[in-house]
Amino acid sequence: MIPRVKYEPRARDGSARRGVLHSRRGLIDTPAFMPVGTAGTVKAMLPQEVAELGAQIILGNTYHLSLRPGTDLIADMGGLHKFMAWPGPILTDSGGFQVFSLAGRRKLSEEGVSFQSHLDGSELFLTPERAVQAQEYLGSDIMMMLDECPPPGADHDYAKSSLERDCRWAKRAIRARGEDSGALFAIIQGGMYKDLRAMSAALLTALPFDGYALGGLSVGEPKEATWEMLTHTIPLLPPDKPVYLMGVGEPEDLVTYSGLGVDMFDCVLPTRMARNGTLLTAMGRLNIRNRRFRNDPGPVEEQCGCYTCRTFSRAYLRHLFMARELLAYRLNTIHNLYYILKLMENIRRAVESGVYSEFSRRTLYNLKADDNE
Amino acid sequence: MIPRVKYEPRARDGSARRGVLHSRRGLIDTPAFMPVGTAGTVKAMLPQEVAELGAQIILGNTYHLSLRPGTDLIADMGGLHKFMAWPGPILTDSGGFQVFSLAGRRKLSEEGVSFQSHLDGSELFLTPERAVQAQEYLGSDIMMMLDECPPPGADHDYAKSSLERDCRWAKRAIRARGEDSGALFAIIQGGMYKDLRAMSAALLTALPFDGYALGGLSVGEPKEATWEMLTHTIPLLPPDKPVYLMGVGEPEDLVTYSGLGVDMFDCVLPTRMARNGTLLTAMGRLNIRNRRFRNDPGPVEEQCGCYTCRTFSRAYLRHLFMARELLAYRLNTIHNLYYILKLMENIRRAVESGVYSEFSRRTLYNLKADDNE
Repeated sequence: MIPRVKYEPRARDGSARRGVLHSRRGLIDTPAFMPVGTAGTVKAMLPQEVAELGAQIILGNTYHLSLRPGTDLIADMGGLHKFMAWPGPILTDSGGFQVFSLAGRRKLSEEGVSFQSHLDGSELFLTPERAVQAQEYLGSDIMMMLDECPPPGADHDYAKSSLERDCRWAKRAIRARGEDSGALFAIIQGGMYKDLRAMSAALLTALPFDGYALGGLSVGEPKEATWEMLTHTIPLLPPDKPVYLMGVGEPEDLVTYSGLGVDMFDCVLPTRMARNGTLLTAMGRLNIRNRRFRNDPGPVEEQCGCYTCRTFSRAYLRHLFMARELLAYRLNTIHNLYYILKLMENIRRAVESGVYSEFSRRTLYNLKADDNE
Repeated sequence: MIPRVKYEPRARDGSARRGVLHSRRGLIDTPAFMPVGTAGTVKAMLPQEVAELGAQIILGNTYHLSLRPGTDLIADMGGLHKFMAWPGPILTDSGGFQVFSLAGRRKLSEEGVSFQSHLDGSELFLTPERAVQAQEYLGSDIMMMLDECPPPGADHDYAKSSLERDCRWAKRAIRARGEDSGALFAIIQGGMYKDLRAMSAALLTALPFDGYALGGLSVGEPKEATWEMLTHTIPLLPPDKPVYLMGVGEPEDLVTYSGLGVDMFDCVLPTRMARNGTLLTAMGRLNIRNRRFRNDPGPVEEQCGCYTCRTFSRAYLRHLFMARELLAYRLNTIHNLYYILKLMENIRRAVESGVYSEFSRRTLYNLKADDNE
């Protein structure tokens, strides 16, 4: 199988690495954060604004797009890139995570998983092949295989049979992929069991995937457990392939896990928090609803170079948020995405300069100051 | 009294006129449409985007800003221009229209009008002096006098005593105005009675106002009545002062009333309709929710030069709107404001070229085609 992405290493500092991922729609500096554009839009933002903030790749959710407006419709409209006017790389998930979150409304078999649409209750059936096909309809540049996301507390037996099924699904996904379609990433599972993580890694790295994601982490378990699984699993992955930690986006985690060798992250956190009035800063989180900001003429963050901070006061942002003005969500999103994408840039620089452990220590210390709340 | 704005005539065609209104924060080409920024933001839009769409002046609502965040707070933050980052001219209303809309929750006296806040029910009192002061706190470039907005069906006696009180309030507003504050416009009332419109015009044009607004029109009466009142009243106003028709923004009305000599308009229509999924086009209104747009790859309007039409399909806009995505409101607002501001530009050009009646006939004919619904 021809690799559809190519990972080029640039620098290393301890376990952290800085590289470039070449995709068919442009390069991605890693470690990279991918803003989430669930329904064909990074909420409240124009695609060109997302690019100007420094994003080189975004994530689309196949589950949401399949239900509305439909991946076939998007294909008819020329694919997701054209539909949403984002010319850069797009990574899509398989839809599995959302389906497996539909507790009580889905049924798993060897063939796939049947579920009810959360929009209209209609019965749907997702298989490894259909997951690939849906992502191909979208025109995805990096597709994810369908895997089961076992419940957080799954026991060893359950986790083992689940990852074994994943491996059979992985082979079906590879067979289903068309010649001209995007890259395909595997998802390492295995719960919180080191032996199972190793087993999953061994089975999946034997297959011709273009990259490896770590699934089932940061879904509620203690951070120490995630840390332990990552330090154990990442060294088992091929060094010439990108490593993707799914669903992680807290600033602390981006710093810590980049330090362990993760290359790619995605999370709704910065954009969702923005819409809830929580702003990310180097000194921790700031709740813009706080009454003490009502007449605060200063920006959200003094040193921040984002449009929001360069233009508006905390008093104005608080006013917009309290008045539920649409502009509030937009200005907050600009700030939070700028913050996260700048953090990734600083992470990459620190690796290049060989000062990662000092950078990490200082950044985490400041974040814990949390003098905003 | 020194005039705080200066109207410079440029061209005339029948009763229509094209001019330039010079204000302390820049010039305004007339006839002009003022987008409404009720709560210190033109909803969903950055101020610079509103300017790029062609707006040279926006309107702020003193009632809303007084209740939240408070005009005193805005004054502390350096005024409304700085607060919302709009450096151009701002016209503010007096707050009276909103207060008089609070049926059953307000009480009128010679001194002023007492009312209950719609936000927290607190008792407030608005007077001609306080209306001026609130607008001065905002840093308004064009302030409106407080007037009563009599109920649409008011009888002759009521309308007469109301406009007489307005005239006493007008004198109090002029006395209350500070030396460095913005221009002050009077509001001609008189209901649907020609003699009273003439009386109101005679009383108010004898006072040193900087411009004249026509109030109490387009609030539910037939359009013929508005037309009749305008043709009767506008010739009674001083030709060297701007004429402002409050609350009007339907495309048809902008064309028709510009033809009668109106220089300034404001309305929430284009922005509110955008948020309701109704898009304005030269061929009438288009409801983006319509199922036939679900797989329509074309733009909202083929000839439109706005960012939305240049970038996205009807199918995408329908998808965003059905998914209640924040971007929907923004992209629709861009289109509708572009449409209206372009229409005003075409109105001015038609007056300059002396082809207004042909322009008006053709534009109104196309709008009635309404082949979108």
